[in-house]
Amino acid sequence: MYHSHDTLHEFTRTFFTTIGCSARDAEIIADVFVAAELRGIGSHGLLRVADHYNLWKAGRLNTSPRLSITRETVSTAVVDGDNAPGMLAAAFSMETAIRKAADAGTGWVACRNSNHFGIAGYYAMMALRHGMIGICLTNANPLVAPTFSVSRLLGTNPVAVAVPAGKEPPFVADFATTPIARGKLEVAVKKGEKTLYGYVQDSSGRPTDDPDILRKGGAMLPLGGDREHGSHKGYCLGATVDILSALLSGAGFGPFVPPSVAYLPLPGEGNGKGTGHFFGAMRIDAFRDPGEFMEAMDRWILTFRNAKSADGKPSVLIPGDVEREQEQQNRERGIELLPSVRDELNKIAGELGMETRL
Amino acid sequence: MYHSHDTLHEFTRTFFTTIGCSARDAEIIADVFVAAELRGIGSHGLLRVADHYNLWKAGRLNTSPRLSITRETVSTAVVDGDNAPGMLAAAFSMETAIRKAADAGTGWVACRNSNHFGIAGYYAMMALRHGMIGICLTNANPLVAPTFSVSRLLGTNPVAVAVPAGKEPPFVADFATTPIARGKLEVAVKKGEKTLYGYVQDSSGRPTDDPDILRKGGAMLPLGGDREHGSHKGYCLGATVDILSALLSGAGFGPFVPPSVAYLPLPGEGNGKGTGHFFGAMRIDAFRDPGEFMEAMDRWILTFRNAKSADGKPSVLIPGDVEREQEQQNRERGIELLPSVRDELNKIAGELGMETRL
Repeated sequence: MYHSHDTLHEFTRTFFTTIGCSARDAEIIADVFVAAELRGIGSHGLLRVADHYNLWKAGRLNTSPRLSITRETVSTAVVDGDNAPGMLAAAFSMETAIRKAADAGTGWVACRNSNHFGIAGYYAMMALRHGMIGICLTNANPLVAPTFSVSRLLGTNPVAVAVPAGKEPPFVADFATTPIARGKLEVAVKKGEKTLYGYVQDSSGRPTDDPDILRKGGAMLPLGGDREHGSHKGYCLGATVDILSALLSGAGFGPFVPPSVAYLPLPGEGNGKGTGHFFGAMRIDAFRDPGEFMEAMDRWILTFRNAKSADGKPSVLIPGDVEREQEQQNRERGIELLPSVRDELNKIAGELGMETRL
Repeated sequence: MYHSHDTLHEFTRTFFTTIGCSARDAEIIADVFVAAELRGIGSHGLLRVADHYNLWKAGRLNTSPRLSITRETVSTAVVDGDNAPGMLAAAFSMETAIRKAADAGTGWVACRNSNHFGIAGYYAMMALRHGMIGICLTNANPLVAPTFSVSRLLGTNPVAVAVPAGKEPPFVADFATTPIARGKLEVAVKKGEKTLYGYVQDSSGRPTDDPDILRKGGAMLPLGGDREHGSHKGYCLGATVDILSALLSGAGFGPFVPPSVAYLPLPGEGNGKGTGHFFGAMRIDAFRDPGEFMEAMDRWILTFRNAKSADGKPSVLIPGDVEREQEQQNRERGIELLPSVRDELNKIAGELGMETRL
């Protein structure tokens, strides 16, 4: 069964106003949830409404936050998210980065005391509406072991970069600093399948193809997989995301990032507040004539798009192509939720006395 | 035979003044060359003096450049390197980024019309002397095929990030966006050995363990190796480095980056000028009380350093550990050049009528 994105937007909005968000805040949050669904990233879509519901019931989510800038210069700011749903803290932080960039050429904002914010690409893409380059990083609850270790010290810590182009659609990269997303492991577990080597290790640090290994003391591997294939580079990248997101803002770092689900305990105090993000916005004309830049960017995109494919492989993709095509299709056809997700959402709506159902 | 780093510094300085550099410029260039040798990255050390000699003889390197800022805002600048040795353009650009950060909180500089600049980490580390975070990216001559392609469109495009700490040594990540450096392939060729799968592909895009495949129309793979193991993420990262380095500055992008050796032809005109770099400097106090930050950074470093090792693996490394230990050793013991490199340097010294020999 397919739902229009408007229906999903309205449901999400109603859910968040029901648990205490203002109409304006619920609108922002619903935008991010529905963007994930439209772009084909269901793992960050309405599936996660239940996590928010459970965090809220446990008193672990502040639905009427006061977001504040606690420190700033002409090109920087630090935002305290007041334990808000991550989408609110993130959207406010990225707006601040864009405002700083309008004045100073670039704007850079670190955010603490936030929560899971959905898809990183959403915030990077906010800069495109202003003709700017947008950057978004976030840390996340620890699942990844650094090279040589068995300790889960880093999240999948994604990097998103959005670059405007001229006649071509924008370049939008949004990728975890691990070979795969955690969601792919869950899918393999549910199907009773093995996974590929190179994604996870067991509790002794040995390679394994068991997708359920995270429940048995195993860990995800950094991008690169093993040392011979550059896992130390994936570790460097994930570590950089953690440092910029948490240490510049005062958020929890590495193993002290709070979980995005209520059934896992909160980390102890004293190692920073909440989840951390880092945002950047760069005005093109702070570097180059925008007309020239857009033309060069179109040339870049066409050069890569028209590269020769390997035998039996599809055309070279520009980062953002897949999600944009998915969005076009999902806008027209509607979005299919997993039956289990729909049932859960309707159950929550019932418990909260919401009038709307999916 | 071991040489003191002072001896190598003097040799390099003399070489560059002999081919037309000012004493001050030669000093800067020698600093970067010797830093590579000290840090154990011989592939970016005196081995490359010959490349500079050949580029200069071919009239492809400007040893008396006029570096200029062609555009700026309070937090940004664009530098034209006037076809200088990359070290000069890069050091000037990073100094500019640091100066901007002192005023605006952060500074971001894109540089065009430059050349190979040695180790990216050197410039990121310049920020440490000012208690700032330093970032350095560069594009490089095309050897890497994007996911699904056989066309060599990207360089090994490294990323360097230096972060100051308190009592602990700084975090210094400096890594190519490919599983290995090209130099490792050369070593395997010279030894007549195969390489591992996951580094290179043949001219049809098929996996291969032939380290000499670049001479046969093959290509290096992005970090991740193949699509299943996240090569599209390595491609996203290398592409981002290319865009920030070349498109913001007006340098040659992707396949149009000029080679760092004289025996390869220059790319055609019209797709940007020279090699491109991108530099960032961030003042800690633009985000957080520096004392608090340094303490948190020490805690971060100790948390990772003390993580549990996998069976049979060494301790977890903090980015920069290996190079720092190497430097300590090389300062005391001296630096060993390959006999072939030493002979070549002495031959060049003879041709130029330099009085010094190694």
